[in-house]
Amino acid sequence: MTEAVSRPTLEAVAARAGVSRATVSRVVNGGDGVRGPLAARVRKAVEELGYVPNQAARSLVTKRHDAVAVVIAEPETRVFADPFFALQLRGISKELTAHDNQLVLLLIEGRADHARVARYLAGNHVDGALVFSLHLDDPLPGLIQDAGVPTVFGGRPGWGQDPRNAGPGPARADADPGPVYVDCDNRGGARSAVRHLVGLGRRRIAHITGALDQTSAVDRLDGYRDVMAEVLGRDDPRLVVESDFTPGGGEDAMRELLGRCPDVDAVFAANDLTALGALRVLRAHGRRVPEDVAVIGFDDMVPVTEQADPPLTTVRQDIEEMGRLMARLLLRGLSGDRDGGGPAAGCPDAAGNGVILPTTLIRRASA
Amino acid sequence: MTEAVSRPTLEAVAARAGVSRATVSRVVNGGDGVRGPLAARVRKAVEELGYVPNQAARSLVTKRHDAVAVVIAEPETRVFADPFFALQLRGISKELTAHDNQLVLLLIEGRADHARVARYLAGNHVDGALVFSLHLDDPLPGLIQDAGVPTVFGGRPGWGQDPRNAGPGPARADADPGPVYVDCDNRGGARSAVRHLVGLGRRRIAHITGALDQTSAVDRLDGYRDVMAEVLGRDDPRLVVESDFTPGGGEDAMRELLGRCPDVDAVFAANDLTALGALRVLRAHGRRVPEDVAVIGFDDMVPVTEQADPPLTTVRQDIEEMGRLMARLLLRGLSGDRDGGGPAAGCPDAAGNGVILPTTLIRRASA
Repeated sequence: MTEAVSRPTLEAVAARAGVSRATVSRVVNGGDGVRGPLAARVRKAVEELGYVPNQAARSLVTKRHDAVAVVIAEPETRVFADPFFALQLRGISKELTAHDNQLVLLLIEGRADHARVARYLAGNHVDGALVFSLHLDDPLPGLIQDAGVPTVFGGRPGWGQDPRNAGPGPARADADPGPVYVDCDNRGGARSAVRHLVGLGRRRIAHITGALDQTSAVDRLDGYRDVMAEVLGRDDPRLVVESDFTPGGGEDAMRELLGRCPDVDAVFAANDLTALGALRVLRAHGRRVPEDVAVIGFDDMVPVTEQADPPLTTVRQDIEEMGRLMARLLLRGLSGDRDGGGPAAGCPDAAGNGVILPTTLIRRASA
Repeated sequence: MTEAVSRPTLEAVAARAGVSRATVSRVVNGGDGVRGPLAARVRKAVEELGYVPNQAARSLVTKRHDAVAVVIAEPETRVFADPFFALQLRGISKELTAHDNQLVLLLIEGRADHARVARYLAGNHVDGALVFSLHLDDPLPGLIQDAGVPTVFGGRPGWGQDPRNAGPGPARADADPGPVYVDCDNRGGARSAVRHLVGLGRRRIAHITGALDQTSAVDRLDGYRDVMAEVLGRDDPRLVVESDFTPGGGEDAMRELLGRCPDVDAVFAANDLTALGALRVLRAHGRRVPEDVAVIGFDDMVPVTEQADPPLTTVRQDIEEMGRLMARLLLRGLSGDRDGGGPAAGCPDAAGNGVILPTTLIRRASA
C-alpha cells in the first residue's frame, strides 16, 4: 500500500518535463508521433524520477495480445437498437479480422460502468481501444489516458487539450498532438443539407438537433446556423429544437416545432432516426412531405432511409468505412507504422491528428 | 520449444486417471462439482505426471478479472440483425453489471475465427465464458475445453460426452457431468404449437425447420414429429422443409412448400423470423392467414410478433431470462457457490447439468 504513495506518477513526470500527461503517456507507450527532443526530455524525467509505467503501458513494449477493445459510450440497449453502431462495428470487425486481431466489445449499462471498463482496459487484456459515441462529460477519455492504452476515437472528442493540464505550472513547451480520431464532415454536411432546402425555396427551415453533449450534434447545428445566417441573414431561435438522436426524440421535437412555428416549411434533422420520428408526426398532423414540409436527415442509414415514407433525402456518411479506418489507424500506430500502408481515405483536420471523411447529399423524395 | 514436447498434456492426465478431459479440466479449475474420490484420483495423476495447468486455468485459483466473455458462434452481421441475440445479451449484461463484472463480447466474422477466440479465452483475460448459438461441427467447445475456461452454454450443446474421448482405452470410471447449459423446452414447445394446429382442425401441417446443425432446431423438429405421429398417425416427409432460422430462408421454404403441397393448411415455423418470411410469401400467393393457412412461430420476439400482419401466434421463451440465468450460473460456479443464492428458475434436465426453461403458447391472429 505504501507503493501507491511513494511511486512517482504520470503527473509528476509531466510536470518535471513541462509537458502534458498525454505526451508522457505517448512516449512511454512508444512510437506514437512525439518528436525527438520532446521525447528525450520526457525520457530524462522518467529516469530522474524512477517512474515505472503501469502494466498496460509496459506490456505494449513487450507483448501483443492481438486484441482490440471497442467501447461505445451508450447503454447496450441503444447499441443494439441504433443501426449506426452495427454499421461501425461491421467496418471495425472486418478490418481487425483481416489482421487476425480479436474484436473485444466492452458493453455497459450506463455511465456508472465507465470506471469498470477503464479497469479492464488498464488490465493488460488488449493492445488498444476504439472508443465512440462520447458525451462531453463522459469520464472515459481521462480514465483511458490514465490507463495508458493507445486509443482512436470515433467522432471528434469534446475536449481539446486535456483541461486538467491547464492552470498554474511551468509553461507548456510541447505541442500536444491531442487525441487521434476519425470523423465525418458534420458541419459541411449540415451546410449542404440546409443549402439544398434554401435552393428549394424554403425559408422557415427548422433544425432538430442531436444530443448537444456530442460534438457531432454541435457541429451539425453550427452548419445549420452558418447557412441560415449567411444566406438568409437570420437565425430564429424558435426554429431550433433540442433533441437526442432517437426516433422518439424526433417525434417530441416535431410536435414542439409545429406548436411554436405552425408555418415551418422545412426540417433538417440531426440524424435519420430523428427524421423518421418527425415524418411520423407530420403525417399524423396532415402535413404533406415534401409539399408542405421538406425533411432531410443525416447518416443515410440504408435501408431505413430508402423504405421511409416518403424515402428520405439525407446527408450520407460512410459509417462502415469510418469504423474500418479507426481500426486501421490504431493497428498502424501499434505497429509503429503510422505513415505506412498508403494514404488513408479522408483529409487530415487542421491539427493533423484527426481524419475527416467527406459527406454527400443523397436526394430522395422527402426534400 | 522443447517445453511443448516434454510437458504432460491434459489428455495424459485424463488417460492415467481413467477419466475424461472435461473431468480433469473441472478438477484443475477447482470447485466445479466433481465428487471427492474422483477428484482425488485426478489430483494424484496430476501430481504423478507433474502436469502444469495452462495460465488461464491457474489464474482462476489465484486471481479474478471480474470479466466474463460472451461468444456467439455466428458472424457479427447476424448478431446485430437477429433480435434474439440482443435480448439474450440484455439479460447477460444486466446480471453481470449487477455483480460489477465486465461483459466482454468477442465478435467473429466466421468459423475460421474460432481459434482466435479460443486463444483469447485461454490468454487469462476473463474469468469464464458464456457461449451460444453453437453448431454441431463448431470447433469451439473442444477449443474452450482445452483452454480450461469455465463455461456455461446457451442452448444444449450438440455433443454429449466429448466424442474425442470415445474409443479404445481404459474403462471410464467417472460419470462426466457434461457441459453446463441453459435452454428452453424446445421439444415441448413445438408439441404445444402443433397440438394447437391439430385442435384448429388442421391436418396438412407443415414444418419449416431451423438450422439442423443446432440442437434447438432438431428438438423442435422432434416435437413436431411427436405430435404428427401420435395424433395423426402419419409424418409426411414432404411437409418438412429444411431452413435456417432467417426471414429469407423462411420465404424460400414457404415457396418450396406451396410447390410440393399446394393443399398445406398450417405451418409451424422453427422461429418467428422464419414465420415472418412464410407470411410474406403466403400473402404474395393470395393465401389468407389464418383462414387458408394457419401459421405459428417460435421465440415470441416482441414487438415483431405483435406487429406482424396478421399478429403472429408463437411459442414464447423468455430469452432475456435465459441470458440472465446463464450469467448467474457462471458467476455462482466461479464463486464456488453452485447451490447458493436460492433455487434457479426452470427445471434441471435429466443429467442434472442443464437448466430447462418452460415455454408458453401465445395466441394471436395467425393461428
